[in-house]
Amino acid sequence: MGKLKIGIVGYGNLGKGAEKALAQNPDMELVAVFTRRQPEQLAARGVKFEHISAAEQYRGIIDVMILCGGSATDLPEQTPAIARMFNTVDSFDTHAKIPEFYDAVDAAAKQGGNLSVISTGWDPGLFSLNRLLAESILPQGTGYTFWGKGVSQGHSDAIRRVPGVKAGVQYTVPSQAAIERIRSGETPDLTTREKHLRDCFVVAEEGADQDAIREAIVTMPNYFADYDTTVTFITEEQLQAEHQGMPHGGFVIRSGVTGEDRKQLIEFGLKLESNPEFTASVLVAYARAAARLSREGQTGARTVFDIPYAYLSPKSGAELRRDLL
Amino acid sequence: MGKLKIGIVGYGNLGKGAEKALAQNPDMELVAVFTRRQPEQLAARGVKFEHISAAEQYRGIIDVMILCGGSATDLPEQTPAIARMFNTVDSFDTHAKIPEFYDAVDAAAKQGGNLSVISTGWDPGLFSLNRLLAESILPQGTGYTFWGKGVSQGHSDAIRRVPGVKAGVQYTVPSQAAIERIRSGETPDLTTREKHLRDCFVVAEEGADQDAIREAIVTMPNYFADYDTTVTFITEEQLQAEHQGMPHGGFVIRSGVTGEDRKQLIEFGLKLESNPEFTASVLVAYARAAARLSREGQTGARTVFDIPYAYLSPKSGAELRRDLL
Repeated sequence: MGKLKIGIVGYGNLGKGAEKALAQNPDMELVAVFTRRQPEQLAARGVKFEHISAAEQYRGIIDVMILCGGSATDLPEQTPAIARMFNTVDSFDTHAKIPEFYDAVDAAAKQGGNLSVISTGWDPGLFSLNRLLAESILPQGTGYTFWGKGVSQGHSDAIRRVPGVKAGVQYTVPSQAAIERIRSGETPDLTTREKHLRDCFVVAEEGADQDAIREAIVTMPNYFADYDTTVTFITEEQLQAEHQGMPHGGFVIRSGVTGEDRKQLIEFGLKLESNPEFTASVLVAYARAAARLSREGQTGARTVFDIPYAYLSPKSGAELRRDLL
Repeated sequence: MGKLKIGIVGYGNLGKGAEKALAQNPDMELVAVFTRRQPEQLAARGVKFEHISAAEQYRGIIDVMILCGGSATDLPEQTPAIARMFNTVDSFDTHAKIPEFYDAVDAAAKQGGNLSVISTGWDPGLFSLNRLLAESILPQGTGYTFWGKGVSQGHSDAIRRVPGVKAGVQYTVPSQAAIERIRSGETPDLTTREKHLRDCFVVAEEGADQDAIREAIVTMPNYFADYDTTVTFITEEQLQAEHQGMPHGGFVIRSGVTGEDRKQLIEFGLKLESNPEFTASVLVAYARAAARLSREGQTGARTVFDIPYAYLSPKSGAELRRDLL
């Protein structure tokens, strides 16, 4: 069997991460990157770029399209549209809207005879899998999800909207004290403030009132008011030198009991130097699964919950049983 | 739909754990425990006991048999025999013999029109799943499995065979230093000695030569010679008071890179106060999956690699997407 033919839709951080992840998987081949920009501007990178409007010409050529757009406006339109033509994988992560997104994609994919894996990545994605696994095995227990340490794009944007702020970045930091309590067997009810801290690094405009900026940030409703927030003023040079990475990660922990109060703890954790590259690596593994499910004749929308891990690997069932079981 | 009707075969620590786990899952019902002992001797416990030879009479009544025998001699015979009559779940854990065991159970289950999930539990089982997931997402990387801190039955038995030893227990202890090196992003080649320590607690017979016992243990080939082993002599009272639990656990860690050497770490860990109760809880969740797969008309052997997590949960797909994704 030949290599899996993959297309990437969108060439931001996630799309670039998918390109790099595909290079690590010899059973896959990147056919083209589809973009809303003028593809000529991007042509020098050794990858074939196409305008998104040309996607239809690749029907029958591309096995799976990896959709790397954003959840706010791109994916709600893109996934159903492209699922009518191709198998797809995406990282739609607006938790509250997943049910309606699933229905829309399911209908479109079935109409096109394709298979779409929605909402992969690590949360939703690997973290969701671990929440499900842990509560299925320990029905009597309490589950926790912690995020970080990592950059939150939404909170960084919120900082940058404060008057007098020139640039800034916000890190979500899980409370080590809370995690240690849970690891030691406690099942505390934790408030928002007890679970995560927010660390802000801010470049102020010249002459700006730093106290006023700090006050505006730490009291900002929804974003910071419910958290213990620190604001550190730094120079533009420091921001460039120390805060350009996109680290992230977190923990899914379930503390349960079996029998006569025997404590049992299941923990899954990620520590990522590049959030977009890791998310893209998950998308690529699920692209392999999408192609296989489609080849079996399956159609419609799937989530990570519906897909056996064997489908993520290029190895055969016999190899997996021999080497990894 | 009525409750799932479950049978348990074998009533040692694992079988008793399965009984307790079933009590935590309201969609399941324990019909009977099958044993090679005289069932009358066990009848007082509020559970229906049957001799193993009566199992056949439960065809059409029991949906899934949870096989709680040992891997050395019980399961290689029991699983194929019972798979001809019932859907089964077992925890066969002799890694090297899994391929032939799979083939034997697959043939028997297909012959009987049943579905058998083999080699569940946590290793093989949940640890295997995490090894597969992590290498599928981070193909460029190194994977590690650490076990413990926990009681190793085989090593405890080995201690008790040393002349002059009255009783004893052995704990496998993962090297915290090795784990921290990996967590910090290193991918060391670790020797056996560098990965785990072995802590032995020994009750000596009166007048026995403790130095000779210690020497016999720490130099014992296969079991202790390749490890840093400590031997602590304790009283029979201390053994009773402090070493009757069956704790275990461990870690599966993969350290990989994406793109231009971005380090990415995936870690799964368990901390268990009761190894058999936890293993049994995994078996029970996979019993639910076995029943569902069988109801779909699937037959033959399956491993954890072949089963989507959604099948482990009593919740519907829509509930899972809404609550856990």
